[in-house]
Amino acid sequence: MNSASGVSAPDPGLPRVVIVGAGFGGLAAAKALRRRPLRVTLLDRNNYHVFQPLLYQVAAATLSATEIAAPVRHILRSQANLKCLMAEVAGVELDQRRLRLGDGRCLDYDFLVLATGSSHSYFGHTDWARHAPGLKTLEDALEIRRRFLLAFERAEREEDPALRRELLTFVVVGGGATGVELAGTLKEMARLVLPREFRRISGEQARVVLVEGGPAILPAFGEGLSERALDSLRGIGVEVVLGRNVSGVDDRGVQLGQERIPSRTVLWAAGVAASPLGRTLGAALDKAGRVPVGPDLALPGHPEVFVIGDLALFAEGPLPGTAPVAIQQGRAAARAILATLRGRPRARFRFRDRGSMATIGRGKAIAQMGRLHLSGVSAWLAWLFIHLMLLVGFQNRILVLMEWILAFLTTQRRSRLILEPFRSSEPPKGPADVD
Amino acid sequence: MNSASGVSAPDPGLPRVVIVGAGFGGLAAAKALRRRPLRVTLLDRNNYHVFQPLLYQVAAATLSATEIAAPVRHILRSQANLKCLMAEVAGVELDQRRLRLGDGRCLDYDFLVLATGSSHSYFGHTDWARHAPGLKTLEDALEIRRRFLLAFERAEREEDPALRRELLTFVVVGGGATGVELAGTLKEMARLVLPREFRRISGEQARVVLVEGGPAILPAFGEGLSERALDSLRGIGVEVVLGRNVSGVDDRGVQLGQERIPSRTVLWAAGVAASPLGRTLGAALDKAGRVPVGPDLALPGHPEVFVIGDLALFAEGPLPGTAPVAIQQGRAAARAILATLRGRPRARFRFRDRGSMATIGRGKAIAQMGRLHLSGVSAWLAWLFIHLMLLVGFQNRILVLMEWILAFLTTQRRSRLILEPFRSSEPPKGPADVD
Repeated sequence: MNSASGVSAPDPGLPRVVIVGAGFGGLAAAKALRRRPLRVTLLDRNNYHVFQPLLYQVAAATLSATEIAAPVRHILRSQANLKCLMAEVAGVELDQRRLRLGDGRCLDYDFLVLATGSSHSYFGHTDWARHAPGLKTLEDALEIRRRFLLAFERAEREEDPALRRELLTFVVVGGGATGVELAGTLKEMARLVLPREFRRISGEQARVVLVEGGPAILPAFGEGLSERALDSLRGIGVEVVLGRNVSGVDDRGVQLGQERIPSRTVLWAAGVAASPLGRTLGAALDKAGRVPVGPDLALPGHPEVFVIGDLALFAEGPLPGTAPVAIQQGRAAARAILATLRGRPRARFRFRDRGSMATIGRGKAIAQMGRLHLSGVSAWLAWLFIHLMLLVGFQNRILVLMEWILAFLTTQRRSRLILEPFRSSEPPKGPADVD
Repeated sequence: MNSASGVSAPDPGLPRVVIVGAGFGGLAAAKALRRRPLRVTLLDRNNYHVFQPLLYQVAAATLSATEIAAPVRHILRSQANLKCLMAEVAGVELDQRRLRLGDGRCLDYDFLVLATGSSHSYFGHTDWARHAPGLKTLEDALEIRRRFLLAFERAEREEDPALRRELLTFVVVGGGATGVELAGTLKEMARLVLPREFRRISGEQARVVLVEGGPAILPAFGEGLSERALDSLRGIGVEVVLGRNVSGVDDRGVQLGQERIPSRTVLWAAGVAASPLGRTLGAALDKAGRVPVGPDLALPGHPEVFVIGDLALFAEGPLPGTAPVAIQQGRAAARAILATLRGRPRARFRFRDRGSMATIGRGKAIAQMGRLHLSGVSAWLAWLFIHLMLLVGFQNRILVLMEWILAFLTTQRRSRLILEPFRSSEPPKGPADVD
């Protein structure tokens, strides 16, 4: 194999590390193996890494897809010992130490890092998925954006006030960070941005309802911040329903026990299910499909296989499914591989919690960093700064910063294109405007 | 109907003008009717206007879709006498003076402006469309981008050198402005941007072939500029084949009579066919499906119906299918409506040709403005300036300018996401990388 890129190719006798998944965990593992005497292959079914914490802003048409994602090859272009492959993985053959790919071919490894993350869980109701898309991938975000904007277009030409109300009611299921951020930003869109441009829709008409089964939103932040977040969310006009579980979802609304919320746009931010790749490992998984791993993040009995991020269930106590956990575990797996190659013992993984934060809307957020609890504008500015710094790529940082400044100053949003407006599955409905 | 947007609604007794199509022509007509005592409705099947002259830059991953398109409602938000509707038009009932919409409903008009443009023509070979997408819509551009980037990903993991060559051969059919600009920018991508990030692909391996049936590319520019464009194109490494007609296209290449060019990515920039809406008017169309119109741009026998832009065949001599023609005709149709309402005669349409230009690549373009013929850097700078000024929206102008500066300085391109990487119609092929 000769290298056309000017980066010299690694020696074919070196140990092979295969990393599956180019999310936060896989990317951190790959970077931590830079300049080491290894042959590293990073597989992903997409050609890009996506900055998941900002997906909701793509869904709400504030940012465009290219602003929060970058080609994996581009991010790792100067890493000489690494090769990127765009491929799907069908399963792991642990005894042969090889991966089966989606096209039937195999790929051998000496060390394997599985970082395939998670998708949504509908708690066994797989038929809900069609009516209530979740927000895990860029395609999900573009689909939510399409449904949200299309609902306004349809409401504009709808004569029947009851149908118009249904079209303008948006239900978000799940009061974690994703649900809260999505509900807050959709309400802002509906209240500040869109009414200026529609002739029949006022900001008050568009309802956003957040449904949470537990007694509080954002429970991980503690009672004080959780209540402040609830006040902020209600302050901008989001209707929050607490302690009610969803018992049904169809194309006309959500059922909460006896009560029904008629809505044409239901979004899912409730359950999480680990990637199905875990099932091919032969290990006993937990309810969410996660793979139990030891203190070194390796699969019990297979010290050459690491499982990290949302796919892993850490033996010494479960960890949240967040970017910092995945990143720290990616680096730890890389360190464990290097230690093993040097004949040294592996360290136990320990998560360093540097805090967490969530935005509610324009100038509103909550943040928890150790004992420091922030809310309001200070938390929001901290959120803006940290998320900008974490975004991959200097160009993306500049462009996202500009988008945010323009969005803040003008209450306009640029990314409001409805691609594939009339899919065959849902023809445009409702009477035309015949006044 | 009450207006929620603070813009007062027009009097229901005013004449109704319906404009179909929010391209350059329809948008120009709508703007020219601003502040007039009319009820204007602008229909489009998309919710956005797209700046077609830059579509090829979306196809080549330099710009993102949101940078060259904007929601129609947003562009016309302060035009009080206008309403936007997202809808498909099935046909025109001339005698009843009404439109039939895609969902079966009708829409009455007093004046109608048809500006639905054109799409590709495969000269009767409709089966070629699947193998050789054209470049008329934003979806087309995203599809071309997907195929182009995916071909590189597949070539990277392909062991067979013959197949790799096929994957890295890109054929563009048609030597007009679209074909030339597309071929030039794809070659630049293949030569300057992508090889840095692939381990097995060098810039020389990726071929771009431009096939033109006539004796010259860009014949509309005259012999001198046409030859300079040909030299520039060949100078950056595009292979140009002149005077050869395509006799077949399939999923493995292009047939030129006896000769065959094996290629997995064929792009179509050859024929143009007017929108099928013209066929519902009952008039005799020309070969390209265009509707003949009189000197006032109205349909003969129907002074209340105007046909403009790519859909129209101007009686006094055919005009090119360009943005300036559509814009001037949109304004002329609006003036003709206003003249008729005042009981005055209509003016004859006269096209003012201010020149034309085409880019070949980084720092290379040709431009013709009256007797002034430019080529090279001066033409390229003129092209940049004029296209930036014509883009809709101040924010888009700033962001596109930044993208161009970053692209020029860094030879990087940001918009390289492959959305929907593995469509069911084309599973990933070729052996995995098993070194």
